[in-house]
Amino acid sequence: MKISRRACIVLLLVAATTSGSCVSAQTDLPVDDWEPASTNQPGKEFPKVNSEGRVMFRIRAPQAQSVTCSFRDSEEFKQDEEGFWTGYTRPLDEGFHYYTINIDGAEVPDPGSKYFFGAMRWGSGVEVPAHDRDFYAVKQTPHGQLREVLFYSESTETTRRAFVYTPPGYEQDTDKRYPVLYLQHGWGENEYGWGEQGHANLIMDNLIAEGEARPFIIVMTYGMTNEVRFGGLRSFSIEPFETVLVGELVPFIDANFRTLADQPNRAMAGLSMGGMETRLITLRNLDTFSHIGLFSGGSISMDDVENTEGFKEKVRLVFVSYGSREIDGGRTRRGGDPRADSEALEQAGLNSVFCVSPDTAHEWQSWRRSLRELAPLLFVDRTTPTN
Amino acid sequence: MKISRRACIVLLLVAATTSGSCVSAQTDLPVDDWEPASTNQPGKEFPKVNSEGRVMFRIRAPQAQSVTCSFRDSEEFKQDEEGFWTGYTRPLDEGFHYYTINIDGAEVPDPGSKYFFGAMRWGSGVEVPAHDRDFYAVKQTPHGQLREVLFYSESTETTRRAFVYTPPGYEQDTDKRYPVLYLQHGWGENEYGWGEQGHANLIMDNLIAEGEARPFIIVMTYGMTNEVRFGGLRSFSIEPFETVLVGELVPFIDANFRTLADQPNRAMAGLSMGGMETRLITLRNLDTFSHIGLFSGGSISMDDVENTEGFKEKVRLVFVSYGSREIDGGRTRRGGDPRADSEALEQAGLNSVFCVSPDTAHEWQSWRRSLRELAPLLFVDRTTPTN
Repeated sequence: MKISRRACIVLLLVAATTSGSCVSAQTDLPVDDWEPASTNQPGKEFPKVNSEGRVMFRIRAPQAQSVTCSFRDSEEFKQDEEGFWTGYTRPLDEGFHYYTINIDGAEVPDPGSKYFFGAMRWGSGVEVPAHDRDFYAVKQTPHGQLREVLFYSESTETTRRAFVYTPPGYEQDTDKRYPVLYLQHGWGENEYGWGEQGHANLIMDNLIAEGEARPFIIVMTYGMTNEVRFGGLRSFSIEPFETVLVGELVPFIDANFRTLADQPNRAMAGLSMGGMETRLITLRNLDTFSHIGLFSGGSISMDDVENTEGFKEKVRLVFVSYGSREIDGGRTRRGGDPRADSEALEQAGLNSVFCVSPDTAHEWQSWRRSLRELAPLLFVDRTTPTN
Repeated sequence: MKISRRACIVLLLVAATTSGSCVSAQTDLPVDDWEPASTNQPGKEFPKVNSEGRVMFRIRAPQAQSVTCSFRDSEEFKQDEEGFWTGYTRPLDEGFHYYTINIDGAEVPDPGSKYFFGAMRWGSGVEVPAHDRDFYAVKQTPHGQLREVLFYSESTETTRRAFVYTPPGYEQDTDKRYPVLYLQHGWGENEYGWGEQGHANLIMDNLIAEGEARPFIIVMTYGMTNEVRFGGLRSFSIEPFETVLVGELVPFIDANFRTLADQPNRAMAGLSMGGMETRLITLRNLDTFSHIGLFSGGSISMDDVENTEGFKEKVRLVFVSYGSREIDGGRTRRGGDPRADSEALEQAGLNSVFCVSPDTAHEWQSWRRSLRELAPLLFVDRTTPTN
């Protein structure tokens, strides 16, 4: 098998098109081209976003003494005669952001936004339109299905939820079988994240319509990470989730969906803590998974390769990505050098890809782009000229 | 074809087991057996419910002057030294209720609850455990799938969402075809309602596991009703939604799911305004639908039967239900006498069923019970001894 490194060209090309830097909202007047955010509830005018990436809030609270939002460096909210409090943020990175509104000390969701699960709560989110948002736009192309399924887990004695994306065509040709990507959310999030904030289904619909990715199934379940506080990561054990995922969910999916149920056709990827889970689980289960994706969630070093029996023979892709704002002098802010790790794997003859999302941080726009870059590389056998 | 009336026995039997009456919270101390509501966010202690059906809220708002909830006759909220405001409601009907929290005049969701779409907003809901909640409990039985699908609508030039419940076994026997129920939400709600608040998938999973209902597909989409304010109902036109549902969604479902794509195997039901829509659409499309279900949403009179060509030959079931608190001396509060209408249909030899949900009003517990009663009556051909 010839293993080649794929350069992450698309992401690098778009790097220069946004300013994205944080400037002080206090010193500049905002550009007056505000539009309701795409993440608003139906019919709600606020929050609004402008072309600078600022977000403006308006909250009716006639008797309140103070209203603020959780974005740092925001303008002070001012109250008008009708009791509406209005304020706006500094320019934010393009993409999706969680936030809360604070009314006289009460941290509450914004009644104008839709709600998303992050930071361990269902709460507000706002979308700052990204220049490259076309890749997750709803288009008039064939759409896959996003299915909520319930499966019983013996190890936890619970009925658990997973979301399963089946690609366009799955219902038409009922003899065809598909590879599967197991895709994990981050700490503080849950199994809704990739479908709601991540638009995984739309990213795949569009890639498949354009012939850029092979149709495959995506499975998203709760990573059991939210009981773990950051300070408690040292005591984190992967085994409970590994048992649910590898021992219970993989067999359930293979029994209930038309999968290609073997190691070459199974991938795992995850963002942030879901990347850490992906790394731990794949390295321990290389007879189950052949493709590994870590989005803002660590990397695989040559030590890992050498300490894991059969790594070079079994692993068909190692994909590592970060938001550009997470990379500091080639190293992530939490230490380690994922780019150097990736290059070392490449030099050792492994299929290793490193991607950087321009002008984004540890946030969903980085991870949407990561999935968009990973998907075309999955389940493409390089031993034959066509797939 | 022999058409028989089915008595609505189950609902009547449970009528005496709950008190459910509204008493003044001001005169009685609540029973101190509070438990976190099942509708809470993960790990959130509040809101809590007790065995009387009261709901207790606790909101941290240190600088607030006033905190209230939208349930009438609630205790005045009191603030403690740590800034937490606490208050509780009168005993509520069992089942699901929408609500808001008011902080110094700001109407906001409760940060402790999960969020549901009703009253034209994503906002808080709370579940008061019902004595008969077992029929929508998550059980260790085979589960169907709840699928989010996107379909393009030519008439509205939009890509629209539907949720499709496929019953257990749908993925296993890929030759089998199924009847379809089109199931509508009420005014101010959307296509999420029956899956989230209504537990339609769990109701069906349990009925099918017990052999009480024939497996069928359920399709839920947005009824386009929320632009219609109550005062505007007189000018309401069914045609835009009729075009989407009958002209676009039915063909999409028949093309993308293994349906029995004929009139005897197609039903429509809806709650409240969804019932009104069901009545209008089925009466105009009796070559498409054979079974009609109206939950707290009007009835079909002998005038309707006589003014609709082929009604007696084409309609296999008319199911009408109400919450007991909606029925006032045999009439609904908005006029009409659905029980008398149903009895007239029965006397005319039609398969007509009238059900009353005990001790509930115009709310989800009435409608969950309505689906539970309707489902066993659907697609059961009475011309042959077994189905």
